[in-house]
Amino acid sequence: MTQDQQSTYAIHPIDVILHKRDGLALTDAEIRAFIRAIVDRTPRKQLVTDAQIAAFLMAVFLHGLDPRELATLTEAMRFSGEVAYTEALNTFTIDKHSTGGVGDKTSLLIAPILAAAGLAHPTRDGVPGIVVPMISGRSLGHTGGTLDKLETIPGFNTQLSFAEMRDVLRECAAALIGQTPAIVPADRILYALRDHTGTVESPFLIAASIMSKKLAEGLNALVLDVKVGSGAFMPTYEKSKFLAELMVRTGETSRTRTVALLTTMDEPLGRFSGNWVEVWECVDIMKQVRHPMSADLIELTNILSGWMLHLAGQADSPEEGAKLSDEILRSGAAYKAWLKIIAAQGGDTTLFEDPASHHKPTATRILTASQSGYLTGMDCKQVGWAVQRLGAGRAIPGDPVSSHAGIEMHAKLGDKLEANQPLVTLFSEDASLLDEPEAMLRKTLQITNAPIAKQPLIREVITANSLT
Amino acid sequence: MTQDQQSTYAIHPIDVILHKRDGLALTDAEIRAFIRAIVDRTPRKQLVTDAQIAAFLMAVFLHGLDPRELATLTEAMRFSGEVAYTEALNTFTIDKHSTGGVGDKTSLLIAPILAAAGLAHPTRDGVPGIVVPMISGRSLGHTGGTLDKLETIPGFNTQLSFAEMRDVLRECAAALIGQTPAIVPADRILYALRDHTGTVESPFLIAASIMSKKLAEGLNALVLDVKVGSGAFMPTYEKSKFLAELMVRTGETSRTRTVALLTTMDEPLGRFSGNWVEVWECVDIMKQVRHPMSADLIELTNILSGWMLHLAGQADSPEEGAKLSDEILRSGAAYKAWLKIIAAQGGDTTLFEDPASHHKPTATRILTASQSGYLTGMDCKQVGWAVQRLGAGRAIPGDPVSSHAGIEMHAKLGDKLEANQPLVTLFSEDASLLDEPEAMLRKTLQITNAPIAKQPLIREVITANSLT
Repeated sequence: MTQDQQSTYAIHPIDVILHKRDGLALTDAEIRAFIRAIVDRTPRKQLVTDAQIAAFLMAVFLHGLDPRELATLTEAMRFSGEVAYTEALNTFTIDKHSTGGVGDKTSLLIAPILAAAGLAHPTRDGVPGIVVPMISGRSLGHTGGTLDKLETIPGFNTQLSFAEMRDVLRECAAALIGQTPAIVPADRILYALRDHTGTVESPFLIAASIMSKKLAEGLNALVLDVKVGSGAFMPTYEKSKFLAELMVRTGETSRTRTVALLTTMDEPLGRFSGNWVEVWECVDIMKQVRHPMSADLIELTNILSGWMLHLAGQADSPEEGAKLSDEILRSGAAYKAWLKIIAAQGGDTTLFEDPASHHKPTATRILTASQSGYLTGMDCKQVGWAVQRLGAGRAIPGDPVSSHAGIEMHAKLGDKLEANQPLVTLFSEDASLLDEPEAMLRKTLQITNAPIAKQPLIREVITANSLT
Repeated sequence: MTQDQQSTYAIHPIDVILHKRDGLALTDAEIRAFIRAIVDRTPRKQLVTDAQIAAFLMAVFLHGLDPRELATLTEAMRFSGEVAYTEALNTFTIDKHSTGGVGDKTSLLIAPILAAAGLAHPTRDGVPGIVVPMISGRSLGHTGGTLDKLETIPGFNTQLSFAEMRDVLRECAAALIGQTPAIVPADRILYALRDHTGTVESPFLIAASIMSKKLAEGLNALVLDVKVGSGAFMPTYEKSKFLAELMVRTGETSRTRTVALLTTMDEPLGRFSGNWVEVWECVDIMKQVRHPMSADLIELTNILSGWMLHLAGQADSPEEGAKLSDEILRSGAAYKAWLKIIAAQGGDTTLFEDPASHHKPTATRILTASQSGYLTGMDCKQVGWAVQRLGAGRAIPGDPVSSHAGIEMHAKLGDKLEANQPLVTLFSEDASLLDEPEAMLRKTLQITNAPIAKQPLIREVITANSLT
């Protein structure tokens, strides 16, 4: 019986559970039927119960998925709801996804850089030669969310329909929108169950979750920024690399050219971590105001954009792409594209004229170095939690976040410090929220007498060719 | 931190799931907290969700339980509701449990045999020296249920409270009652979830389910009849043996002397399979009417009762016990005890005067041998399903069962057959239900020219001493 023939027969969720439980590879028809049942069920018609989905998730957690199963699961989830249908634009569609970090604001720079490149080279139809249909998420755990940062811009609307998004792409080459319930609904259901059944940390389920949402954008290419280090979600380098390989293989199977960069997240990226402060930092960079603390952010942005420009055919190599990215930043073209995107989505661009003046925390505290020496270590996850606790994140989904909470770092790992020099400035809109984050930061930031060797920003690049 | 100290801290179900998922041995406190949450939850206070229980069950299915974990889980389930508190009788309490077969009616003989022995040797308090607080179940899958058989006796009440049961035990030495929602409620919840999440066949979960219910009776000793062969639930001899070993170890850990006999279930046990017909067959035996087709039933009954009499101290060896059991049957003492038990629980004993006359199927069909030769094989599970489909079992839990549906076997495996001699008589209360079971039986009963070697009835005995 071929898979197509099989799909014409009824497949019961219980059999799919039994097969995965027993370590068998699921057929494509089984995977599709299971995901279909998840999405099509109603309270009155429980095609599959929460308990059955949980049993399935635990069986997948413990037995894993082979590459074909993962690709099929990802595709089934991808098509479980609306897809962006950017294919209609008939141009090169590309996006970047980060597994999440502290102060990680590269999306706010990469979208305008690629948009500028796309606008500079339109297709014969007059559409930008590159478009970036970026669907972003909110703050999760110790990490910030691109959507929360963008929503500090008054009037900026992230809740576009896909038709509206395509209009913005035609005009601006990039659009910055949020997840809606209609996009990959299977992932929302699976994620909510994973969260309380102990099945979150499966690299297979993480890969399917990330890739189904990104592939729903209809991409020609995707660059993944997979974080490693103390601020990454994955606990070890090996696990981050395994996840990166799963995602590259899955993307390639779905005919999306996929590259993953394993990048160091041992300290906050750039100068600021928070919401508005991160927009401010990016606007400064796009306006050629390069604060020394933003050097690592600019470097990573150019490397990621460089890969994207290379994959989009605008640079012969990723290195040439990185140079082109930096030129686009320095020329002001990225800033022009940024203003265009923000305006197209209803945002007030007058704030960008003097972004520092719009940073309005009501409480500020400076943490100073307790001794002279070198900044040699921190648990970057703890730094991220401190930012969240200042008000930049949520305790409960749906809560509002503070626009002006956050931190400014005054030193990078390896920097030489004098006793009592400022180390971190803490911002909040509620003075009572300063004490706990200050204590957390004081505890985790280590100053020692001798310097240490720092990890390079880029650790490894995973492409289709590097997969074994 | 000791386990007792730990139990004073809150334990969250999610952590129990994570630990079992990661292959760790759960602490006693974790297991107890998880079972407590299952039983204590309410729709408004979901201490643990169905999805979490399902994830836990799948993790247990795939990682198993070590002997301590299994013993603790069984004890936690045992004490999740009411227990029989037969300890109050201050006498030797014993029961038998079968993993389920076709025509397996030994309970209907063993309870009166042991009761007769108990009544013959009262304690100094005047209580029977042996009591059998037998809690039985209903038809499950292809197998019959003792409770369904007993309920063909008009007036017989299986829904006794534990206090009422103890009164019957004081007077009759045995009581035959049904499961109530108050007995081992954790098992009902877990079983319902296992049934639809693909986690039924775990030997660990089966052992905990069986043993928690049996141990709730408050037993000094337990004899387990673990079936092997084509009519057994467990698919292989090795899996049946593994289950038997788990149950013996678990019983012994709970200070209940436990012995398991691995017995052959390759064909229906005795003459009849059904509901009233099985009561009839047992009444005949107790009245010294020994039909040749009942020989295997009598043999197995005496062997199981023999072990019980031996464990209860009334026989120096199981073999001596089996002889004593046969004497009790032949003396009429078992029949007297039977009448006493049935009457004490409200049953009409006048039916037993001529049980054949109370067998009232409305439709009967005789399946004859298609050729001469030897009856050499059958899928006993299929024979059991044929009995169920004649009306003896249920399609949906809660449905009524037919009292008079069933089959009479006219040959045993290995018997020589003449062409056209009766092989099976089918009974039903609905003529339209005869065709499918007849076709099932015709298909599965194999007649060949040469005889084959038959498996012995008793394959192996597992005791505490035989555990490695």
